[in-house]
Amino acid sequence: MALSFDFTNMMAGALPPGAGISGEQYAASADAFARAHAAVHARTHDLGFLTLATNVPLLAQSLAVAERLRGRFDDILLLGIGGSALGPIALRTALCPPRWNELTKEQRGGHPRLHVLDNVDPATIEAMLARLELAKTLVLVVSKSGGTVETMAQYLIVRDALAQALGEEVAKQHIVLVTDPQVGALRRIARDEGITAVEIPANVGGRFSVLSPVGILPAALIGIDVQALLAGAAHVTEQAQSPELSRNLPGTFAVLQWLADTRHGRSVQVLMPYADTLRDLAHWFVQLWAESLGKLKPDGSSVGPTPLPAVGATDQHSQVQLFMEGPKDKTVTFIAVQGREHEGRIPARHADFPELGYLGGHSLGELIDIEQRATAGALAARGRLNATISVDTVDAWHVGALMQLFALATAYAGELYGVNAFDQPGVELGKQFAYAMLGRAGSDQARAEWDALPKPDPRWRM
Amino acid sequence: MALSFDFTNMMAGALPPGAGISGEQYAASADAFARAHAAVHARTHDLGFLTLATNVPLLAQSLAVAERLRGRFDDILLLGIGGSALGPIALRTALCPPRWNELTKEQRGGHPRLHVLDNVDPATIEAMLARLELAKTLVLVVSKSGGTVETMAQYLIVRDALAQALGEEVAKQHIVLVTDPQVGALRRIARDEGITAVEIPANVGGRFSVLSPVGILPAALIGIDVQALLAGAAHVTEQAQSPELSRNLPGTFAVLQWLADTRHGRSVQVLMPYADTLRDLAHWFVQLWAESLGKLKPDGSSVGPTPLPAVGATDQHSQVQLFMEGPKDKTVTFIAVQGREHEGRIPARHADFPELGYLGGHSLGELIDIEQRATAGALAARGRLNATISVDTVDAWHVGALMQLFALATAYAGELYGVNAFDQPGVELGKQFAYAMLGRAGSDQARAEWDALPKPDPRWRM
Repeated sequence: MALSFDFTNMMAGALPPGAGISGEQYAASADAFARAHAAVHARTHDLGFLTLATNVPLLAQSLAVAERLRGRFDDILLLGIGGSALGPIALRTALCPPRWNELTKEQRGGHPRLHVLDNVDPATIEAMLARLELAKTLVLVVSKSGGTVETMAQYLIVRDALAQALGEEVAKQHIVLVTDPQVGALRRIARDEGITAVEIPANVGGRFSVLSPVGILPAALIGIDVQALLAGAAHVTEQAQSPELSRNLPGTFAVLQWLADTRHGRSVQVLMPYADTLRDLAHWFVQLWAESLGKLKPDGSSVGPTPLPAVGATDQHSQVQLFMEGPKDKTVTFIAVQGREHEGRIPARHADFPELGYLGGHSLGELIDIEQRATAGALAARGRLNATISVDTVDAWHVGALMQLFALATAYAGELYGVNAFDQPGVELGKQFAYAMLGRAGSDQARAEWDALPKPDPRWRM
Repeated sequence: MALSFDFTNMMAGALPPGAGISGEQYAASADAFARAHAAVHARTHDLGFLTLATNVPLLAQSLAVAERLRGRFDDILLLGIGGSALGPIALRTALCPPRWNELTKEQRGGHPRLHVLDNVDPATIEAMLARLELAKTLVLVVSKSGGTVETMAQYLIVRDALAQALGEEVAKQHIVLVTDPQVGALRRIARDEGITAVEIPANVGGRFSVLSPVGILPAALIGIDVQALLAGAAHVTEQAQSPELSRNLPGTFAVLQWLADTRHGRSVQVLMPYADTLRDLAHWFVQLWAESLGKLKPDGSSVGPTPLPAVGATDQHSQVQLFMEGPKDKTVTFIAVQGREHEGRIPARHADFPELGYLGGHSLGELIDIEQRATAGALAARGRLNATISVDTVDAWHVGALMQLFALATAYAGELYGVNAFDQPGVELGKQFAYAMLGRAGSDQARAEWDALPKPDPRWRM
């Protein structure tokens, strides 16, 4: 069980003249990284994600709830958005058989489906409620603050539907709240109404919460090996104790992306796993990287790379033309999966057709791996920076390891960029405008600011 | 039935000083647009996508095949990648009830499911074949060239599985090939073996093919109103006959994005529908915009904006922090849906909780619309360029209209950037490297070039 990281194609020697990070530049970043490392690891008390993988009482809480609920439900409906949704979706896609929710209960080994409502589109929620058998449905309501507008609106609708279908008392037994241990509306509802609640530790922010009950509870309910997930994350955390750049994989990932952005103009940073199962892990990474690093600094400057999700080989037929020939403003990080070379044997047929004959006897596992290496080589040959993280296989251990790798890298990158990786002040203004339009108490100032914005200009409308 | 476009927030007057496109700049682009318009519409003979919406014989071909196959299949398995997959996926997500493939046959009105295999991940294909009842499965093999390596590999595997399950003769009746009318391996297979084939006109490229049988045949099979889809596209094409910038919606979209990129440094261009059903349309747009415009020009310069997919309100909790506070290198184009204000009534409960009380009596339709406008206003207030395309509703007519809007805009943008929007030479090198590793005949030169690339450097490996 291991992760490896090959960043040859980020470095000057492997790329055409003028492109790439020099060995000197990488070496000279060792001190900056050591300071970033010290700053992050000194905050173990504040940064709960550093110890989630070894937080035994917290794991026990999710496992006890999952055990108590085992066998009672065919469907889990998770209400959440952002960090409350992206982690559970990524775990389901990576670690359950493909298209889990399309399988029969028998094909699912008796485990429930997992539906995630991560938006307030009325069409989606209506269709979902029309389809679910609520008597066999468990609702997980996930919000760190316990007050997220989208999740609260979903909750009011779903709670009403449950109460109508099952009665108020039974409805409560179909709900588990996942929220802050002390504050917020969900915690108060849990106390007032005796609804089961599990805690997101106060020092764990939404986008760093996948290894808290936010991800662990739904994962346990649908049969994912959560102990292996945490073991993979613990392994990476342990390895990352080293402040030495060349021994710290998440640190090296962070430093390279930071140098590529700030010194080489590579501000768009693609994550491109060559595995369908890691498609949603790339989306989870997008939130982590974008929301943590995209910040206005106190000096008024704006920083933050733009993460871009992709999937190989699929996106070779969509985005790779741009990566190859478009502006030299990108890095691509591949995730390669080892050990598939015997999977998906391609039978020989039409041996005389040039388009088909050469494929017979190869395997899909070989093909997808060859395509990844070919794309990496072609990008490098054209001066496009890229690197490859390799995993032995896509299992719970490696997914936990990958997630912790990116979480640590994000924390380090926050220090390198000189921003707070753990807040999101930029979304406040939009929230306040929405509150004002909804008539929430205390939004008079936002209302005034909203009303003062320029109105739609008929000249610029068609 | 209508589309509208409000680009006030792209323009200087609505944004803080220093940001935005000036009225003069927009007006001064009218001539450049008129030339681009003339160049595109002069090529009606070459650019088949311009007339797909009114190509009656082509539509009849798909409808006849769909009619002949009606009722015979529970599952459609589409083998294709890139433009052969993104369009059908976008149509299914936009125009079938949510999570179509999870519904029962009765809930689907008797129509089949649609599965799209758009990768060569052995785990995905193995799981798919293990689950499908092949006796009730129709396989669509979609490749313009008839030789796409990924699709050919899928075809060999699926053809073998069909033959084993049903016998060679019956297997042929479970296959429809969608390909060029004359050239390529799939066309030859159709002729040699008497397998049904429908044509992608020779003058229609993969990413512009959604309104050809590539999208129309699977859409018709799963019960989408393909005539309405084409009518929406025909409407937009008709409107776009005007070479006058201020009367040409796709033209204005193209000109604004081009100006924002080339004059204002806004090189990342986000498409953010506020509707779950349009999520995959944003992915379809990504291919169209990226692969058409991301090009190396003859003078050696690289051009091309980077399209970024998002979904509202969901991505307010993921990417919007970066859009608000990160570098001023982005535009955001929202797609808003009108007329949802009465959908998804939010019941009153916990009226005394500040986090919930204000929501009661509102609707989800109101909420999602308010959030879109609040986000647009907040972005503008912070100098971030954005615009909003509004549709009355998400139905076949409007989806056809949106797709044609973006296809036309892409063609115009190609002219504005001075690139060929209809080729993809940048992916050739990676293909050749893959052929070399697979031992395809004629790839000796690629093999030599591959072997000459720098090897992984042990210093840059961990």
